[in-house]
Amino acid sequence: MDTPLATASIENHLLAMPPVRAMQLRWLGHDAHSVRLGAPLAANVNDKGCAFGGSLTSLMTLAAWALMSLKLEQAGSAAEIYVQDSTVRYLAPLYEDLVAEARLSPDQDWASIVAAFAQRGKARASLQVAIRDRAGTTCCALEGRFVAFAPKTDS
Amino acid sequence: MDTPLATASIENHLLAMPPVRAMQLRWLGHDAHSVRLGAPLAANVNDKGCAFGGSLTSLMTLAAWALMSLKLEQAGSAAEIYVQDSTVRYLAPLYEDLVAEARLSPDQDWASIVAAFAQRGKARASLQVAIRDRAGTTCCALEGRFVAFAPKTDS
Repeated sequence: MDTPLATASIENHLLAMPPVRAMQLRWLGHDAHSVRLGAPLAANVNDKGCAFGGSLTSLMTLAAWALMSLKLEQAGSAAEIYVQDSTVRYLAPLYEDLVAEARLSPDQDWASIVAAFAQRGKARASLQVAIRDRAGTTCCALEGRFVAFAPKTDS
Repeated sequence: MDTPLATASIENHLLAMPPVRAMQLRWLGHDAHSVRLGAPLAANVNDKGCAFGGSLTSLMTLAAWALMSLKLEQAGSAAEIYVQDSTVRYLAPLYEDLVAEARLSPDQDWASIVAAFAQRGKARASLQVAIRDRAGTTCCALEGRFVAFAPKTDS
């Protein structure tokens, strides 16, 4: 599904946050199953010349957040999405620009999540994100639980 | 133990990283058991007006890194320290400046870690970090495993 307005809206939403602007985050692409976000190494480098762990985790968390936002937006649901918890494994140093790819965890499906949100105004999802280098080595991996709420309306 | 040179050195080391400068990290203090790092909300705010999850996790990871660096430096050991993995729980939104306090996990002790590093040039440690608001509520918590290596020397 082509959704240039939705993806531009999500990217702008992310870039409105000062720490995300500082990372120089970019929307790299998406398909029916994944979202890819990128950030240049220069803005996210640590003392060892490789990618800073905090930037790796931020980018992975944002990619998962963006995928869940996109899936609910494509289903016509406005949602406030929060990360509840996450586990990150730092497997190998990354000496190139950061590219994070987010997917739903294999035991989940978007149809059920979208249906739960439509029925209850709340839904949870587990997502997985990996940052791989150009050779395909997974440098770090995140598994996180996210929750979406219907936006509060002023009474 | 008063170690102004060590703490200034660690703070400068952290602030040499562009993403850490962007967070406006500050060394708030330390004692024999803990290190406290801070960062202003304005530079680390998300779309909801509270602290960005990526900044919370970055600050917690850096506080643990700084405590392990300080403990090894106080023991006279130069070390390269890496985070291996971490689990973060986001418990409540934080609408004030960020303050992260790192400690060793209760089942560990620094004497053993310092001894292992001196003997083998390598040591692991589990650390716990919390970010609390001024009322004392824990807004997020990290548990992470870190590893210290003796610096590589050029032959």
